[in-house]
Amino acid sequence: MKFDIRAVDGVARRGTLALPRGVVETPAFMPVGTTGAVRSVSPAEVRESKSDIILGNTFHLMLRPGSDVIRVHGDLHKFMGWDGPILTDSGGFQVWSLADKRQIDEAGVTFRSPIDGSKVFLGPEESIRVQHDLSSDIAMVFDECTPYPATRDAAKASMKRSLRWAARCRRSHTHREQALFGIVQGGMHLDLREAALKGLIEIGFDGYALGGLSVGEPKNEMYAVLDAITPGMPPDRPRYLMGVGKPEDLVRGVLAGIDMFDCVLPTRNARNGWLYTRTGVVKIRHAKNRTDVRPIEENCGCPACVRFSRAYLRHLFVTGEILGMRLCTLHNLHFFQRLMAEMRAAIEKKRLDSFSRAFFENTDLGQ
Amino acid sequence: MKFDIRAVDGVARRGTLALPRGVVETPAFMPVGTTGAVRSVSPAEVRESKSDIILGNTFHLMLRPGSDVIRVHGDLHKFMGWDGPILTDSGGFQVWSLADKRQIDEAGVTFRSPIDGSKVFLGPEESIRVQHDLSSDIAMVFDECTPYPATRDAAKASMKRSLRWAARCRRSHTHREQALFGIVQGGMHLDLREAALKGLIEIGFDGYALGGLSVGEPKNEMYAVLDAITPGMPPDRPRYLMGVGKPEDLVRGVLAGIDMFDCVLPTRNARNGWLYTRTGVVKIRHAKNRTDVRPIEENCGCPACVRFSRAYLRHLFVTGEILGMRLCTLHNLHFFQRLMAEMRAAIEKKRLDSFSRAFFENTDLGQ
Repeated sequence: MKFDIRAVDGVARRGTLALPRGVVETPAFMPVGTTGAVRSVSPAEVRESKSDIILGNTFHLMLRPGSDVIRVHGDLHKFMGWDGPILTDSGGFQVWSLADKRQIDEAGVTFRSPIDGSKVFLGPEESIRVQHDLSSDIAMVFDECTPYPATRDAAKASMKRSLRWAARCRRSHTHREQALFGIVQGGMHLDLREAALKGLIEIGFDGYALGGLSVGEPKNEMYAVLDAITPGMPPDRPRYLMGVGKPEDLVRGVLAGIDMFDCVLPTRNARNGWLYTRTGVVKIRHAKNRTDVRPIEENCGCPACVRFSRAYLRHLFVTGEILGMRLCTLHNLHFFQRLMAEMRAAIEKKRLDSFSRAFFENTDLGQ
Repeated sequence: MKFDIRAVDGVARRGTLALPRGVVETPAFMPVGTTGAVRSVSPAEVRESKSDIILGNTFHLMLRPGSDVIRVHGDLHKFMGWDGPILTDSGGFQVWSLADKRQIDEAGVTFRSPIDGSKVFLGPEESIRVQHDLSSDIAMVFDECTPYPATRDAAKASMKRSLRWAARCRRSHTHREQALFGIVQGGMHLDLREAALKGLIEIGFDGYALGGLSVGEPKNEMYAVLDAITPGMPPDRPRYLMGVGKPEDLVRGVLAGIDMFDCVLPTRNARNGWLYTRTGVVKIRHAKNRTDVRPIEENCGCPACVRFSRAYLRHLFVTGEILGMRLCTLHNLHFFQRLMAEMRAAIEKKRLDSFSRAFFENTDLGQ
């Protein structure tokens, strides 16, 4: 892995991240392909949206199809027909999202499988081993995604365990072509976050992530962590804000010096007919779109806007035709990637400030 | 509309059908796009499958989105983003398929809408008017698709009414660029079928279709009608076998002199994970495909077979990911269109006999 910063504007950075399967232009948004597919679109369509890298979920892939199935294909890339870079999360997020289905101890986490209720154990070594089998370009340490709210004591104990697990991940990680990123936890307690970052830097990772955000906290608390912790993250390593976010969060993150993002929002919302535009969200099912021959967004070059009307897309949703989910997913992915490209260009021209001011003035954040 | 027969082999014909939006190579298979989309695939993908023409359903499009919505787009082609030829059925098939939701009299048919239960009237003039609004390249007469079984008296009364309706369709049809096809009814009674064909020829149509088949009758009864009636259909006009069928039915139809087919089988079965290959059906969900790295079919050039394994496609179905339906639909469409292309080539070389013998020897018709 080779990370080069090509330009800066304030603390925002414009870089390139060279990985075994290709180069990622940063700041980058990573679509989420939970179980080996970015839902409702093909790998070729993900590529056309100018996505350089996608995310796969270790926990879900371990359950289905199982590491053995992916091993017989060679790696996750060959299994899912995506030859570009992949980042795999570690399963740590499921420690939070499946909180009612798991037990934690120092060794790791015992889950009840959401598929068949069977017991599944995942600890640092197991997570690294599965990510080795997936052969992703970037692996994440297995951590405990701290819930919100968490008392200082609970957040501290959780953060310290995540640090011990991070050290075990580092020790068990042997894949020479796979980068390994550490994850900063600590809840909303800034001193705990700082201690976590310090501990991770001592262990030493190829990149550093902010985890445990976007877990139900008010937005100003997330921004407080983002603004306080990002400046202390090693400047020569990629900085990844996990599970974030809305378009405005991406702009805020880039302004704070973040290089990588992932979120299910563009794909999940598309499947519900929520479409992003620069002036707000279009709810495509709405009756007012019934005879609307306009595209979702003028001047958008995505496959949905180039060829189809709002009325047609609405019709697809109303009749339950899955082509609608696909076209809307493509629109949202193109929208997110165009936003990232515009921010990269703005940093190069040292105009991120005016870009972001115009962005916040024109966007209806209420939606 | 211009229909040219380029080659014959026995009674089988190899032709080209020039329509306002393009040329259809015959014998042709038409994928079904019931409500303005060939389910789960895009117009570009339908084109890539070498489909020259698709079918749209007047009855369903009239209910949703409604003719007014299509009119503001110009025509059905612009609405759905398909610039090739379209044939629209008339609603006559729904007289059969919605038998418990309709009442027939001489004027036409009053349906209970399957969407909201409201009353919908469709008669010959209404069907032609909606098809005018859709501006399809080929319209079909509004008829009564006779149920199976039907007594001779019932089939005769139904056939005679269909003939009177056919004459009303002919009179009310004013779209100068749209061809109009007649539909031969008469149940399984060959003399009634012959009388129906004679009546339609007297009225005069641009093409002739065999309707009321594939409605539950044993296959040998369908073949008996096919073999008895097709030779009497005007040789200089396209002959269309409606709602048929399985690959073996397409071969039987071409051998009998049919030029056009439509059926939901390749698309509907694909969405259930039933995939056609030359040696039989592959049920992709089956556990034996779990670690199978082979494509659905060796030497198939479809987007599913070129890039994805059976194991991956199975995984998509098991996890409920809709990309699976799409890839399987593409495979089945490519399979059907390759079969048609091979039959066209065989007719040109006057080798349809040996082609069909090999086909029936190698295909497991039990599946």
